[in-house]
Amino acid sequence: MEAIIMTLTNGYEQSDREQKLNIVNLPSLEAEAKKIIPTGGFGYIAGGSEDDWTLRQNTAAFGHLQIVPKALSNIEQPSLATHVFGLDLKTPIMMAPTAAQGLAHSQGEKDTARGVAAVGGLMAQSTYSSTSIADTAAAGNGAPQFFQLYMSKDWTFNESLLDEAVKAGVKAILLTVDATVDGYREADIVNNFQFPIPMANLTKFSEGDGKGKGIGEIYASAAQKISEDDVRRIADYTHLPVIVKGIQSPEDALRAIGAGAAGIYVSNHGGRQLNGGPASIDVLPAIAKAVNHQVPIIFDSGVRRGSHVFKALAAGADLVAMGRPVIYGLALGGAQGVQSVFEELNHELEITMQLAGTKTIEDVKHAPLTHFNYAE
Amino acid sequence: MEAIIMTLTNGYEQSDREQKLNIVNLPSLEAEAKKIIPTGGFGYIAGGSEDDWTLRQNTAAFGHLQIVPKALSNIEQPSLATHVFGLDLKTPIMMAPTAAQGLAHSQGEKDTARGVAAVGGLMAQSTYSSTSIADTAAAGNGAPQFFQLYMSKDWTFNESLLDEAVKAGVKAILLTVDATVDGYREADIVNNFQFPIPMANLTKFSEGDGKGKGIGEIYASAAQKISEDDVRRIADYTHLPVIVKGIQSPEDALRAIGAGAAGIYVSNHGGRQLNGGPASIDVLPAIAKAVNHQVPIIFDSGVRRGSHVFKALAAGADLVAMGRPVIYGLALGGAQGVQSVFEELNHELEITMQLAGTKTIEDVKHAPLTHFNYAE
Amino acid sequence: MEAIIMTLTNGYEQSDREQKLNIVNLPSLEAEAKKIIPTGGFGYIAGGSEDDWTLRQNTAAFGHLQIVPKALSNIEQPSLATHVFGLDLKTPIMMAPTAAQGLAHSQGEKDTARGVAAVGGLMAQSTYSSTSIADTAAAGNGAPQFFQLYMSKDWTFNESLLDEAVKAGVKAILLTVDATVDGYREADIVNNFQFPIPMANLTKFSEGDGKGKGIGEIYASAAQKISEDDVRRIADYTHLPVIVKGIQSPEDALRAIGAGAAGIYVSNHGGRQLNGGPASIDVLPAIAKAVNHQVPIIFDSGVRRGSHVFKALAAGADLVAMGRPVIYGLALGGAQGVQSVFEELNHELEITMQLAGTKTIEDVKHAPLTHFNYAE
Amino acid sequence: MEAIIMTLTNGYEQSDREQKLNIVNLPSLEAEAKKIIPTGGFGYIAGGSEDDWTLRQNTAAFGHLQIVPKALSNIEQPSLATHVFGLDLKTPIMMAPTAAQGLAHSQGEKDTARGVAAVGGLMAQSTYSSTSIADTAAAGNGAPQFFQLYMSKDWTFNESLLDEAVKAGVKAILLTVDATVDGYREADIVNNFQFPIPMANLTKFSEGDGKGKGIGEIYASAAQKISEDDVRRIADYTHLPVIVKGIQSPEDALRAIGAGAAGIYVSNHGGRQLNGGPASIDVLPAIAKAVNHQVPIIFDSGVRRGSHVFKALAAGADLVAMGRPVIYGLALGGAQGVQSVFEELNHELEITMQLAGTKTIEDVKHAPLTHFNYAE
Repeated sequence: MEAIIMTLTNGYEQSDREQKLNIVNLPSLEAEAKKIIPTGGFGYIAGGSEDDWTLRQNTAAFGHLQIVPKALSNIEQPSLATHVFGLDLKTPIMMAPTAAQGLAHSQGEKDTARGVAAVGGLMAQSTYSSTSIADTAAAGNGAPQFFQLYMSKDWTFNESLLDEAVKAGVKAILLTVDATVDGYREADIVNNFQFPIPMANLTKFSEGDGKGKGIGEIYASAAQKISEDDVRRIADYTHLPVIVKGIQSPEDALRAIGAGAAGIYVSNHGGRQLNGGPASIDVLPAIAKAVNHQVPIIFDSGVRRGSHVFKALAAGADLVAMGRPVIYGLALGGAQGVQSVFEELNHELEITMQLAGTKTIEDVKHAPLTHFNYAE
Repeated sequence: MEAIIMTLTNGYEQSDREQKLNIVNLPSLEAEAKKIIPTGGFGYIAGGSEDDWTLRQNTAAFGHLQIVPKALSNIEQPSLATHVFGLDLKTPIMMAPTAAQGLAHSQGEKDTARGVAAVGGLMAQSTYSSTSIADTAAAGNGAPQFFQLYMSKDWTFNESLLDEAVKAGVKAILLTVDATVDGYREADIVNNFQFPIPMANLTKFSEGDGKGKGIGEIYASAAQKISEDDVRRIADYTHLPVIVKGIQSPEDALRAIGAGAAGIYVSNHGGRQLNGGPASIDVLPAIAKAVNHQVPIIFDSGVRRGSHVFKALAAGADLVAMGRPVIYGLALGGAQGVQSVFEELNHELEITMQLAGTKTIEDVKHAPLTHFNYAE
Repeated sequence: MEAIIMTLTNGYEQSDREQKLNIVNLPSLEAEAKKIIPTGGFGYIAGGSEDDWTLRQNTAAFGHLQIVPKALSNIEQPSLATHVFGLDLKTPIMMAPTAAQGLAHSQGEKDTARGVAAVGGLMAQSTYSSTSIADTAAAGNGAPQFFQLYMSKDWTFNESLLDEAVKAGVKAILLTVDATVDGYREADIVNNFQFPIPMANLTKFSEGDGKGKGIGEIYASAAQKISEDDVRRIADYTHLPVIVKGIQSPEDALRAIGAGAAGIYVSNHGGRQLNGGPASIDVLPAIAKAVNHQVPIIFDSGVRRGSHVFKALAAGADLVAMGRPVIYGLALGGAQGVQSVFEELNHELEITMQLAGTKTIEDVKHAPLTHFNYAE
Repeated sequence: MEAIIMTLTNGYEQSDREQKLNIVNLPSLEAEAKKIIPTGGFGYIAGGSEDDWTLRQNTAAFGHLQIVPKALSNIEQPSLATHVFGLDLKTPIMMAPTAAQGLAHSQGEKDTARGVAAVGGLMAQSTYSSTSIADTAAAGNGAPQFFQLYMSKDWTFNESLLDEAVKAGVKAILLTVDATVDGYREADIVNNFQFPIPMANLTKFSEGDGKGKGIGEIYASAAQKISEDDVRRIADYTHLPVIVKGIQSPEDALRAIGAGAAGIYVSNHGGRQLNGGPASIDVLPAIAKAVNHQVPIIFDSGVRRGSHVFKALAAGADLVAMGRPVIYGLALGGAQGVQSVFEELNHELEITMQLAGTKTIEDVKHAPLTHFNYAE
């Protein structure tokens, strides 16, 4: 399967690096990755939508919440282990479902799955993966994976994808609901970006494999109309937990739960879809309050530091997902690069936990936050 | 009429480009337009007043409101069509009345009218147009237009303008009340700017045609004293709806309605008149609440993105007007350039609507907004 | 007297320009003035104290208040004339008492008095003037002046100064209470600044004329202990209104009035004295509310635009004073330069008044302000 | 002992300057010190943790509080003298316990002790000092000192340190509780920093003297588990007041007092440990309110100006500590440099006190603060 990808790239130069990375911090990976990922691919990965306002706020808004450490807490060696969705995970930091990872590395999602498995984390595959559901699952070597569905207008195709996901043993379906049309991505417009690499899961699909298409064309086959019925239908069809991804308000969280959602995924798609909405971390507390532990909450958008993960957990998340930094690690070091990225953030989180006086992820979830107003 | 303008420009080099534009975003048009519009004209178009504080806040303050998307909304193909002031429009984005468009293009307001008509939008003519009411109206080819009145001290002249407007079939009068003297425009002072091109509607006027005058001299003939009586008088004289343009407080909106205003136009004149007042978007919600759907509300000042239009509609506007970006499109591409500008913003708005889960403009008007505090 | 100054400057190159200035805006004067005022003098004039935090906020904080224009107000030709402290003034913008104006111009305070008189404004002399009370008063040619007292430890000297002021016909005494020691002025430290020019009012004083002294030495002779008794004592001695300058809280305003103050001067000395206090405009509304029109209020610190003057008046001031920009105008154009500075700010204020719908200064004082929160 | 340090530095070039410094302000010392402190040492001293968010806010947040001066207060010659913890001090500004001062100067903590003694201040020694408890104490020449304990996992070692501290006559024990693991210090990672100079107090310790170790290894021997029992145990063992250092919430302050703490030290370790918590000055008022004068409060983190010291005292601190600027002074001038730093900040504080109308430190503690919201 790797060979197929390689032969189809038509001059798009994929990285095939496989190495551990010495990472000082995750934000610094972007500039390094930019040097080796071709312009179009890099723009697709790094870009936000419209004027990137929401993209910028996603990370900046972590400053709206501040950690209140508990002194004299008599703890040591905090543990990142957590149990959620019936899974035992070694870290609450999971891989966000991210499309077209072949843009970053010839091994694509397979290397990501390997890296995530190496840290005992949770992998999420995207419908628009460069490698197939089965191949990515196999690369994960028994570690848990979720499958993220971009619903097609063609329900037969949806069933085909879900069949494959069930067969591959994924533990849950992430139903993305914030991408019923592609965001206004200026980098892709400027670069006149078309996917140089096929999307393996689309090859069975009547309208082609995604290669040579712009993101707009890909989405054109995707369903725009997504409703609460779809949540029920997918749950009934797969008998798997369905987690609704792209929730940004308490009202929607409750509606999704009412429709049978087994989890809520708070996200604004990393600022790549709707621009002009609030930072994801800002809406999390009210959503968590409304959800009130009925189902677990996954959070993403803007996470770059251990302190960000801590804040998201303390603000109500059960799992915290990360996308772009992992893709940069993938480009720079393949599976080992992915592993390095997670290890770095795990390390920062462990330090934050120890210094905050929290021994377990459960402790973090109960840690208080303050809300002083900072200009930065 | 075009020839007349051409011969009277005295060396002022007007663009005569006619072409579609590939627009990535509206803010980027300014730098392109600056390359082809002569310095004095560009300064007049782009400039704000005093230290530009209000001008800068106009756009920045859209960050004070954030869009709350509605997930699982089961919608597709949102429609920009709207019905307001008895008009069926294909987009809620209208042309703001903007003076002296001959500074940007030899076809002036005629090309603007053509471009606006091409997108099924609403055109507003300024008293200080480079082309005459009749010519601009004719160029619009049956598409709806409003006429904006800068009241003269000479009521005979006002009647003459209104007669011509009625004759041309305009659908409403926009009475500008925030320009009873010219704002302190530093760019015009630095450039020692005088209008190189006549204002067609002033040629009948005893004091000349506006050519070779500074903005201060033009305004000197304009009425400074404008009252509620003028609203009534113009409505009585024209039998047309009178919309009061330049309202910035709930109190004034209610007074204008009390004087017979058929619409409220919330605007700070794009930061070109009073400096030191709040951003236009910041005052909109309270005004909309006070107006309480008695009459429609038009909004402008600072709009540059689809998400801005969405926010203005959700904050209470029925129509959202735009000035400078259209003028830049006019300079760069004539009627087709104007059309391109509206198409670009329509496209951004459609994406925003789909991602926000709003199928119609009416849905947008009922969409909630949040108010998190961002530093940017 | 001019000759004396000239011969005593020991190489300090004073400007002797006398010309009208074409001013686009007041902030731009600083860079021009810096070119012609010697480094030490410029640092003394322009500098703030400590890390200049309060200096910077003084101007920026005008953005905390926003003007609410009144549309349809039916006014024209607003008038800047005002009546306060029993004086008929043509503008509410007055000259702040500013020391050592010989640093900027060979004519010093005499030219400032001439320029202020030319616009029908109010001049305030400083104890530390380069020209004597009598000379400055004579230059004012009958226009009203106040005398600002830096109290000496030596009451005999104070009486001598007050005698001279009364004799010169000043209309009130400004008692500065925020300079009981010199602020920590880094520019003066870096420049090792010593006054190259004598302070005329100190020549009678036993400890010398101020020339060749640092600001610290000058203040060493000044009284540090200033109390409510001093207010009473000066009022009793002079039979003139005593206005307490340097008030920054409602409590102090009321105490000063209780001690007989005939006016309150809200100021933080242009950010030159106490650093770390709030911007002067931020404390004005609460002080005005407490004072409740018992006595007039003068305001300064950070005023650079017509909209600033308007906001200060609307926030409770009866007169608005300005220091540094006038000194820059003095350096660049002598008496005519001073006049140009006032004319420019008067012009900006008139435009602001017309556009805000306020015909008189009394209208401005009753105009509402909003308090939206802007990042800038 | 100095000779030993000198011979063990292995090429690390320590400053041995001994001179008074002309200091304009403390922030400017950093750039000067950077020129003479080797890269690794400078990075260790200057660096914060993770993305330095808390480090930056520490100083910026002093702008959240503003000084309200009291006019007409009839005071002069304010006094910095204060009585706290049974000690008569000439200044409320004390030396924060700071590790490894041999990185800055060959005389290390001895010179710091000398400089602090020269201004009549309070010295705090760190467990990780370059010079021994006895040597540092002797250098202080009878002036009061505190000893800061980084608790070891080995209680025998702790007892040995405490024995030595008691023997040296220290007046209190500062128990650091916010460093149970080292913060994520990127500068140290980038520089691959290892201590080039032994830590004198560790030489008795079985695991070595600290030389050639990274900060992580040093902390590995330190206790992670610190509890309220440790507070009691140290108090019982030493019969000295135990002050808990690193408190950031009212709850923790009260717990520490409940455990017998004789003082509360509000600090976030200068932004070097937990990142993502609030600025230290922001948490001080609520802690002071909770403590309610049961025990004295020491404050540090971000203090660079006299106005900062004033604000911290007015917000509830009894003593204000400073670290990095003193170390820079040490590098640039040895004991005299340290003295210059304190004299400079004392001077700024005196000016602030006089201008705020506060004659004594007790007055400052009762001075009001305002809370206007500034962008900077």
